Amino acid sequence: MSGPARTAVIAGAGQLPLAVAAALEAPVFVTFAGSGAAPCPPHAQPLAARFERLGALFEALHAAGVSRVVPAGAMQRPVLDPARLDAVTADFLPQFQAAMAAGDDALLRAVVALFEGAGFTVAGPAEIAPDLLAAPADAIGPAPDAAQMADIARAEAVLAALSPLDVGQAAVAEAGLVLGIETLQGTDALLDFVAATPAGLRRGRGVLVKRAKAGQDLRVDMPTIGPRSLEGAARAGLAGVAVRAGEVLLLDRAQLAHVAARHDLFLAVL
Amino acid sequence: MSGPARTAVIAGAGQLPLAVAAALEAPVFVTFAGSGAAPCPPHAQPLAARFERLGALFEALHAAGVSRVVPAGAMQRPVLDPARLDAVTADFLPQFQAAMAAGDDALLRAVVALFEGAGFTVAGPAEIAPDLLAAPADAIGPAPDAAQMADIARAEAVLAALSPLDVGQAAVAEAGLVLGIETLQGTDALLDFVAATPAGLRRGRGVLVKRAKAGQDLRVDMPTIGPRSLEGAARAGLAGVAVRAGEVLLLDRAQLAHVAARHDLFLAVL
Repeated sequence: MSGPARTAVIAGAGQLPLAVAAALEAPVFVTFAGSGAAPCPPHAQPLAARFERLGALFEALHAAGVSRVVPAGAMQRPVLDPARLDAVTADFLPQFQAAMAAGDDALLRAVVALFEGAGFTVAGPAEIAPDLLAAPADAIGPAPDAAQMADIARAEAVLAALSPLDVGQAAVAEAGLVLGIETLQGTDALLDFVAATPAGLRRGRGVLVKRAKAGQDLRVDMPTIGPRSLEGAARAGLAGVAVRAGEVLLLDRAQLAHVAARHDLFLAVL
Repeated sequence: MSGPARTAVIAGAGQLPLAVAAALEAPVFVTFAGSGAAPCPPHAQPLAARFERLGALFEALHAAGVSRVVPAGAMQRPVLDPARLDAVTADFLPQFQAAMAAGDDALLRAVVALFEGAGFTVAGPAEIAPDLLAAPADAIGPAPDAAQMADIARAEAVLAALSPLDVGQAAVAEAGLVLGIETLQGTDALLDFVAATPAGLRRGRGVLVKRAKAGQDLRVDMPTIGPRSLEGAARAGLAGVAVRAGEVLLLDRAQLAHVAARHDLFLAVL
């Protein structure tokens, strides 16, 4: 049923868990109750889990021969039902509560440490599926012009300033003005916010910049750009999206190119 | 018709122009076409203006005996009709275009310099109506508790990091997490964004912090909190609003207290 180094995908929302699972031979596909994860792909073994019962999850993973886990895709911060806690989750609770109050990545780091403490190796999606990493050859459309490069630099300056605070994977700049900064709600919500900007404040077609935060644990919260991000950028009236090579995962390149062409968007990989 | 130091209020949107005019004896009340400014109060002399015809405005102000101007209230960046430019606006155009691309305050600073160059003194609302400045005695409701003080500190850290970039007068933090950062769209748009946060990401009732940017020219872009900001904070599910004493203008204190009481909000003046 399993080899010596079987891997489990801890599936969050979106396409990333499927892209990671596709790069593995016979993975276990863990979905948490209420997390909105995608359905288990045919070649993987499904495993349903609850945050309240991490002890049970660890046992099930060991029993399935899993030695390595890959968290993939965003997960909502869970609301735990105290009546259902097993011993492992109960012991973890104080750390969990402290991490919840300490920034976007603190909780993820704590969860990684918990899996490591239970004897698992924790790998990032980019280790399992390095082809997902944005590379210069993945650029789509014309290179950004000088004004767009200036907007990219402005958005990057915002992200660099916020990075030590564990805030901000993405920002939008347009004609030198900052139209949005990603917070807990994520990139799609940022793009919806920009889309709602009154027309009188718009000065052309801006740029979305997405990048990793300094010191971000790329095993658990790798920034991604997928077709949905490009659709959102189009709705927000942007000219394109810029990422740093090797810092961001690209999902479904064929569909990315299709969406970019349809909406006259660029994807710059700098 | 006017004394030797007559003052003109350059009226932007909202209540601030009216609050400033109320502190002046016989002001001129300048409204720009399409700026959405409030109607001229009865004790003031109305003066309609166009951005394309700043030369005409300067002449009219001089003719009315005005030696001092007070910009009050946010103004949309204008779209200029090139066919209507007078000589003063035409000469200003290159500076104007450069300033438009250089951040929220750059345009305002350029406009201040233009008025100064035309022989006017430029004063801030707080000089004309110092009673509008938030003071510790203006606090409403219970003092923030330790968790709320931590959220205030987190939002202030975000604003301090962005301040050198001429971005961000306000931010919202809740249980240690950043739920929103003000960009060009302003505080109301920020609060609407926070209000739209999915319930699963909320962890209680956060705090809005508003403050001046470092180096911000407080004559032209003084941060304000009015009843509408508190209504927005209530809709966003927040526990309260925090400002620094002397850095923010409070509009309509009686209504502020009323709105705060109705929605169980605090206003902290730190």
